[in-house]
Amino acid sequence: MQTITPALVRQTIIKRPAESYKGTYGRIMLIGGNQNFGGAIIMAATAATYSGAGLVTVATDPINFTSLHAQLPEAMVVDYTDFEQINDLLATMDVIVIGPGLGTEAVAPTLLTQVLKTVTPKQRLVIDGSALTLLATTRQPALTGQVVLTPHQMEWQRVSGLKIADQTPAANQLAAQRLNVTAVVKAHHTTIYNGPQAWINPGGTPAMATGGMGDTLAGMVGGFLAQFDDFTNAILSAVYLHSAIADDLAQTQYVVLPHQISAQLPKYMHDYSQA
Amino acid sequence: MQTITPALVRQTIIKRPAESYKGTYGRIMLIGGNQNFGGAIIMAATAATYSGAGLVTVATDPINFTSLHAQLPEAMVVDYTDFEQINDLLATMDVIVIGPGLGTEAVAPTLLTQVLKTVTPKQRLVIDGSALTLLATTRQPALTGQVVLTPHQMEWQRVSGLKIADQTPAANQLAAQRLNVTAVVKAHHTTIYNGPQAWINPGGTPAMATGGMGDTLAGMVGGFLAQFDDFTNAILSAVYLHSAIADDLAQTQYVVLPHQISAQLPKYMHDYSQA
Amino acid sequence: MQTITPALVRQTIIKRPAESYKGTYGRIMLIGGNQNFGGAIIMAATAATYSGAGLVTVATDPINFTSLHAQLPEAMVVDYTDFEQINDLLATMDVIVIGPGLGTEAVAPTLLTQVLKTVTPKQRLVIDGSALTLLATTRQPALTGQVVLTPHQMEWQRVSGLKIADQTPAANQLAAQRLNVTAVVKAHHTTIYNGPQAWINPGGTPAMATGGMGDTLAGMVGGFLAQFDDFTNAILSAVYLHSAIADDLAQTQYVVLPHQISAQLPKYMHDYSQA
Amino acid sequence: MQTITPALVRQTIIKRPAESYKGTYGRIMLIGGNQNFGGAIIMAATAATYSGAGLVTVATDPINFTSLHAQLPEAMVVDYTDFEQINDLLATMDVIVIGPGLGTEAVAPTLLTQVLKTVTPKQRLVIDGSALTLLATTRQPALTGQVVLTPHQMEWQRVSGLKIADQTPAANQLAAQRLNVTAVVKAHHTTIYNGPQAWINPGGTPAMATGGMGDTLAGMVGGFLAQFDDFTNAILSAVYLHSAIADDLAQTQYVVLPHQISAQLPKYMHDYSQA
Repeated sequence: MQTITPALVRQTIIKRPAESYKGTYGRIMLIGGNQNFGGAIIMAATAATYSGAGLVTVATDPINFTSLHAQLPEAMVVDYTDFEQINDLLATMDVIVIGPGLGTEAVAPTLLTQVLKTVTPKQRLVIDGSALTLLATTRQPALTGQVVLTPHQMEWQRVSGLKIADQTPAANQLAAQRLNVTAVVKAHHTTIYNGPQAWINPGGTPAMATGGMGDTLAGMVGGFLAQFDDFTNAILSAVYLHSAIADDLAQTQYVVLPHQISAQLPKYMHDYSQA
Repeated sequence: MQTITPALVRQTIIKRPAESYKGTYGRIMLIGGNQNFGGAIIMAATAATYSGAGLVTVATDPINFTSLHAQLPEAMVVDYTDFEQINDLLATMDVIVIGPGLGTEAVAPTLLTQVLKTVTPKQRLVIDGSALTLLATTRQPALTGQVVLTPHQMEWQRVSGLKIADQTPAANQLAAQRLNVTAVVKAHHTTIYNGPQAWINPGGTPAMATGGMGDTLAGMVGGFLAQFDDFTNAILSAVYLHSAIADDLAQTQYVVLPHQISAQLPKYMHDYSQA
Repeated sequence: MQTITPALVRQTIIKRPAESYKGTYGRIMLIGGNQNFGGAIIMAATAATYSGAGLVTVATDPINFTSLHAQLPEAMVVDYTDFEQINDLLATMDVIVIGPGLGTEAVAPTLLTQVLKTVTPKQRLVIDGSALTLLATTRQPALTGQVVLTPHQMEWQRVSGLKIADQTPAANQLAAQRLNVTAVVKAHHTTIYNGPQAWINPGGTPAMATGGMGDTLAGMVGGFLAQFDDFTNAILSAVYLHSAIADDLAQTQYVVLPHQISAQLPKYMHDYSQA
Repeated sequence: MQTITPALVRQTIIKRPAESYKGTYGRIMLIGGNQNFGGAIIMAATAATYSGAGLVTVATDPINFTSLHAQLPEAMVVDYTDFEQINDLLATMDVIVIGPGLGTEAVAPTLLTQVLKTVTPKQRLVIDGSALTLLATTRQPALTGQVVLTPHQMEWQRVSGLKIADQTPAANQLAAQRLNVTAVVKAHHTTIYNGPQAWINPGGTPAMATGGMGDTLAGMVGGFLAQFDDFTNAILSAVYLHSAIADDLAQTQYVVLPHQISAQLPKYMHDYSQA
């Protein structure tokens, strides 16, 4: 198992080419936020936007439109029960993140099915939160292509069938290969499994142990995948920076709020983009 | 009567163990916020979240969902008239705070009754604001277990039957014992009564004399109870830090706004967690 | 005509007594904000709250509840078409501010009439914005007691009958006496008329020439009247500080946004409260 | 083709005259923001307000009222389907900005037609975003008077008929003359065409390549046109400062968020207003 290095992150977050426009940095749709968990999709979308994704669309329950726009006017919104519009938009996306605050009501498995049915090999897909539970508990199309899962250990148990005590690196690796995905298994030191390779994230602080931290990571992973070519390095860099920022903030804070990580992203990514 | 000391606070706010997750820091539900007083539950939930509670759920009038999420996406929301869902969630909570901005309309005493009926000895309960009035004016189950009341002097009069002029430390102590609660009687120097013991808070400034300050304290008490084992020390530490932060801000401010105290919590708690 | 001096402001903004509570600093209701001009009542309420008023209630169109609470959870809200609740609350207030963003639709003159009918000699009343127009164009009870008007020159023309060219200090003074009010006539250098006395405000910058600046002043006047005994000095101090803060901000800003003035109030008021 | 110089910007952003009021700095209406793209009109209105426009009104879908007011209470709002009220207000405006987040549903071409029919030679008109598409795809009155278009290259293709590869300075110049407009063609280095003259903007950074950046520019152009007499210089100065601020922020940020540019406007405009 390799440790993610700052060098890998620096190599991933390249200086932007002068001649570029917002389309260059990807179109991303984040799907989630039911009537109870709207904050989750707000935090994920904030992370994607502050990561530098070019165009961010949020598919959510309309109850969340106003609270989202009140803090993130940069994002576009669409009613996640308007399947026709969702379908049209999905076809135009580079990255799809599904799950933060999605819940498990009727609309949720339908959305997941729609995404899994229509996702193309050129598109990148992040499955997080409730969508992981749905993957384990509802009938869904097989996973193919560029798919990353971001479970915490209980969600990983549901998806992989591995009890938490059995989630050894070797077992996780086999499960990720069997599922045909990259797996980001969140823990004090998060581990990442991709085909025959495995990484451990060196950072992480208990100050991050608060609701919404995972939603922020999912949004960052999506935002990085929208911009950086190398699939694996984009994921590893998002995981690394997420905890690196938290570790720095935890030098002076007992708890780190998720939105504080997003707020730091433009500066940290700038620093890592310098040679 | 003992004075709360910084040493007690330092002893309470321990360094977080490296191997921990959001569940380690408690599930808390805050119940309150009617159609007129929604800001109160927002301020209480903000204080609980910035205190470091692991998972924060707010049960409130749906009119408050958007304003809450616009500033605190970290919290989950639930309609406080959906008694079935409330009931299911209550069973999963470590701490319940009821009262900030709750009002006294029909839904309020029903919610208080539901909480008092279902609360278990392992759960901790903070009763504040309108819920204190309801305790005095409506028929409610007896208080048992880990219960803390956070009245100002008029609310304490209603609950304890003691007129403000009669609220001597000795009388307060007896009343708290009779009510089977820990009582935080808010005043310029707040006093706390728990069984045979009593404490006085050394801090406090008239710059705190503004609406919402008590809601913020209730949220802090809840947040601290969600994380720190010793029931009494958690309460005392919340009371102490609430005024300690205000006293510092009042060095340069004529009035201290409640949300400013919450914003400082991560830094102050970090400082007190250092040996 | 006297110039308002910093000494007068220092004398007015006294150090708060240690033994005090939120009631000590006044209950204030701000009435305004229709479906188009909701921002005005938000800015006025923000100014009142950051001035240190003890308890702030906003009576407005319900469309404005969420945007208000999203930035000012400290305030309570009430539907301004619920005349019964408004009436009950009015009786409990120390200060009433009517007018910011009120508009002139049917509900507006009704509210003004209700306020003018029920206001008592112990209550203080600030009439601003649309309410000034209504005073001139609708049948309203006579003004009595502690009333302050905060017109700009066109509104003053409507209320006083004085054309802008005729608004000399002497004419303004007579008009204010005839109307039985204190008049704050806003201009580059605002003038204030109260019985036989007149003052000129030394400050003021064209960086303040932006929408909402008057709403902020109305809220400050209300907030100061809620806390400081001397009616005239409270008004003069609010006028003075409003422009003094703007003048300082204009040292580095081309335009000063109204909310920026409110944000500075706690610090400026602290400084002026020091001997 | 001339390069826009800081000297031109300094000459444009004059010191404000002491005797002035909010009317001096213009009344501006921004029209846009449908149910999906409400953030765009929020960002445009924020830019106009922070530019110093005297009175800002936003005509938008009512779904956007609350999220707008939650962050910009300084703006007034009006339902963009209330054509009668819009018509009355349009007649009072100095500047109209139409297009940010407007979309292309039925209401949109109707609004554009109404604006184009009623705009007077003394009024200034900024056409942006979806309104540019509508200009190319729906039957609309001819453009006359003080009109500026702010297309990106694809929108310019639609309006001018010039394919992106054919958008040479000479061709753009002829197209702008034929269309009877000033054209701001956005690119890494934006170019501006006005009659026989053409300018290139020296600044610009790929950190600006994010959604909402164009909405912010449209709002700035509107805000500058509301205040500064020289039509062309107002436009050139807005284009220049938009990228100058972004360039400075990009010294430490990987991506620059649109609202960050607006937040810097008061300070930058102050600096450029000094001799």
